[in-house]
Amino acid sequence: MTHIDLSGLLDQLEHTLSPGGVLRGTDVSGRSAGIWRPDTIAAAAILRPRSTAEVSQVLALCHQHQQPIVTHGGLTGLVGGALTQPDEIVLSLERMNQIEELDRTGRTLTAQAGVPLQAIQDASAAADLLFPLDLGARGSCTIGGNMATNAGGNRVLRYGMARSQLLGLEVVLADGSVVSSMTKMLKNNAGYDIKQMFVGSEGTLGVITRVILRLQPAPASHQVALVACPDFAAVTQILNHLDAAFGGTLSAFEVMWPDFYTLVSDAESGCRAPLGDYPLYVLLDTLGSDPSRDKAQFEDVLGDLLEQGTIVDAVIAQTKQEAAELWALRDNVEQVFRFGQPYLFDVSVPIADMDVYRQRVLAAWEQDFPDGHFYVFGHVGDGNLHFCASVGGYDETIKACLDEGIYGPLKEFHGSISAEHGIGEEKKAWLAACRSDSEIALMRALKTTLDPLTILNRGKVIDI
Amino acid sequence: MTHIDLSGLLDQLEHTLSPGGVLRGTDVSGRSAGIWRPDTIAAAAILRPRSTAEVSQVLALCHQHQQPIVTHGGLTGLVGGALTQPDEIVLSLERMNQIEELDRTGRTLTAQAGVPLQAIQDASAAADLLFPLDLGARGSCTIGGNMATNAGGNRVLRYGMARSQLLGLEVVLADGSVVSSMTKMLKNNAGYDIKQMFVGSEGTLGVITRVILRLQPAPASHQVALVACPDFAAVTQILNHLDAAFGGTLSAFEVMWPDFYTLVSDAESGCRAPLGDYPLYVLLDTLGSDPSRDKAQFEDVLGDLLEQGTIVDAVIAQTKQEAAELWALRDNVEQVFRFGQPYLFDVSVPIADMDVYRQRVLAAWEQDFPDGHFYVFGHVGDGNLHFCASVGGYDETIKACLDEGIYGPLKEFHGSISAEHGIGEEKKAWLAACRSDSEIALMRALKTTLDPLTILNRGKVIDI
Repeated sequence: MTHIDLSGLLDQLEHTLSPGGVLRGTDVSGRSAGIWRPDTIAAAAILRPRSTAEVSQVLALCHQHQQPIVTHGGLTGLVGGALTQPDEIVLSLERMNQIEELDRTGRTLTAQAGVPLQAIQDASAAADLLFPLDLGARGSCTIGGNMATNAGGNRVLRYGMARSQLLGLEVVLADGSVVSSMTKMLKNNAGYDIKQMFVGSEGTLGVITRVILRLQPAPASHQVALVACPDFAAVTQILNHLDAAFGGTLSAFEVMWPDFYTLVSDAESGCRAPLGDYPLYVLLDTLGSDPSRDKAQFEDVLGDLLEQGTIVDAVIAQTKQEAAELWALRDNVEQVFRFGQPYLFDVSVPIADMDVYRQRVLAAWEQDFPDGHFYVFGHVGDGNLHFCASVGGYDETIKACLDEGIYGPLKEFHGSISAEHGIGEEKKAWLAACRSDSEIALMRALKTTLDPLTILNRGKVIDI
Repeated sequence: MTHIDLSGLLDQLEHTLSPGGVLRGTDVSGRSAGIWRPDTIAAAAILRPRSTAEVSQVLALCHQHQQPIVTHGGLTGLVGGALTQPDEIVLSLERMNQIEELDRTGRTLTAQAGVPLQAIQDASAAADLLFPLDLGARGSCTIGGNMATNAGGNRVLRYGMARSQLLGLEVVLADGSVVSSMTKMLKNNAGYDIKQMFVGSEGTLGVITRVILRLQPAPASHQVALVACPDFAAVTQILNHLDAAFGGTLSAFEVMWPDFYTLVSDAESGCRAPLGDYPLYVLLDTLGSDPSRDKAQFEDVLGDLLEQGTIVDAVIAQTKQEAAELWALRDNVEQVFRFGQPYLFDVSVPIADMDVYRQRVLAAWEQDFPDGHFYVFGHVGDGNLHFCASVGGYDETIKACLDEGIYGPLKEFHGSISAEHGIGEEKKAWLAACRSDSEIALMRALKTTLDPLTILNRGKVIDI
């Protein structure tokens, strides 16, 4: 290893990258650290390669000098996975933002990692195809970040998570070597499926530079309803019933408990409440192929459930506008900011245990924070709950107490501390609540193999 | 390391395992080496552990003595992935054959790795649920083998490959350490998804001992048709059209070229030909939720295609019996044995290039083997083609020549030498035809990390 200081390394990188490739000083400190965060980026520089070759050169140099790197996509993460130390360098993929090909017959899209999710959705829609991955941050998040974090979102029930949409990828390893696995094949059992290692690794095992995505036929029909249930047992019953009845077209099954429903539909919320007071609300969404048949079936199925009493009230959207209004309730999550900066949690729990678990968490939190405001909702069809807690303060001690309340009981229910948000820096201390020691040891072995000098997103996901 | 000979090691293993745990002599050599193979097992012993703890003890001992091990499931593989050398030891999971739990609400099934696929399908069906993985070898293959090889089969188009059905697994590493990742969560982004490494690794990275599977709602309706197309362009057109029109319920799209269709439906075949002579035949299958609506829609959609001329003839099954008869044609693959032991190939090619590729392969083969019989069919909806070649002989020289004809052109089309059968021993020499050097280097790094002494299924998939 040649010895060189950080400033000398940055000079070398300046020569390596195309013009505008190295930002320093206020070009760094003037940038937000994330779209949900109040602070700005603290890092020695932001590198902006224009090509895979440039990413490779950057990593080779940084590897040579044991210089830690943090890869940045759209900075929409919720677990501190993109945070930097002042002596670290950011590798931003913002200038690698080209959609390279859309193959209509093969239904694939090839893109550089820095393309925003929405640009991929739009390009697919323009070709009468669907890229099904969808989340609130669609305008800012990038496809590379989506894959690096195995993003979930609104249509997992039908189409699976980001992992399921990925056919091929190109990744640059810590030492700068480029691994090309750019296949379009749906089925490919020719050796280990190495792309799987990088999906969900949060930038700690390599830098994803290009992807080949699987596109789906565009759905021709969209049915949306909000229904009310008498109790949680009915929720699990209708989930299994609807998943069967709609033959694979059920794409969202979003449950809202009354506190959340009231918050997002009260006079201050900007939305109106389409249903009165009930024990539980479920937003249903199907994506089908036949508008008239699907609508008739949707109404029949919900009608039967009403007759049986498994649902006690329902409103079915008759227009796109009404469908959007029902979704706006579920998406009106910003209302939880009404009582100060909230803490957001994202857990998985078996559906059978979900309500018991929820009650246990809330009981603990209410005891510790009697004046707190707590809201629960989530992608229950996927086993995924979101909890929001506003307790009139925001510091490490409060966070630790809330963490204990929500992650503590998870082990007993064999849940996960992160359904879709990842681990990053924030949840690292709790990883052992849902991963065995043997799993963590294996993660460490993988990390050590792929990044022996620990230069990639150091201190995230697991400690080495 | 203590020095010990193979016989001493087997004595130790005899003490370690429960009674009947070590087979030797004719108990080994009397067993078939595979359900498609004429030879018997040549190995020093067959170990039959009853529990994960026993598997762990076996591997710890073998690791200590650098004793190579080959894991056996149902021995239904087609690429020599379970072959042994005389001084190797077989680790058979045949006594780990318990279904441990079926969770109706959570729709999961927990099983030991040695449970046959069909037993899992049957248990799921008895609970009015579906385990969608399905292949011809269902009665013999085991769920551990299915996961170790990432099996494909008949319903990949709708439900994905084996990988997509797996929620959790338990695996024993080469050194005997047990990694438990037995989660039921659909969404779990808590650290690296380490189970992905073992799916499709063909027993070279660890021994899968238990799995948690995702079950699906049982489909209430099943539509099957055989249609004829005027040319291959029509085939790609109707695939995209039907996938959209049937809104995700299209579960099989199996193409047969005329040579194959004639072979499996002629006077000697045991089947009858439901359609006359056409350039191409497609077997369509949908699994839906609403028998009457689905049937009407199926008939409408096919009627429209007939009117447009994209399909030129069609027969729609009206009864379960008729549906079974149409599938019997596609499944009548044994007819290819009529002209002697055939060679079977399993490749992926982009659909747009499929017919050109097929013509190129057949031209090469026909030149080398003017009297050969060649048949092509496959899961075209998944980009997967099967080729059968009967050339009046079966030896390494012939195999090499056929390999050259089929794998040689694949690189140009960016296809895969193995869509679903894996690499095993047979395809190892051709891996570089569809995997980059960088991918293979990464596979090696993974193998070296997880099995540093190369005791697990030595010589399969990649050379170290």
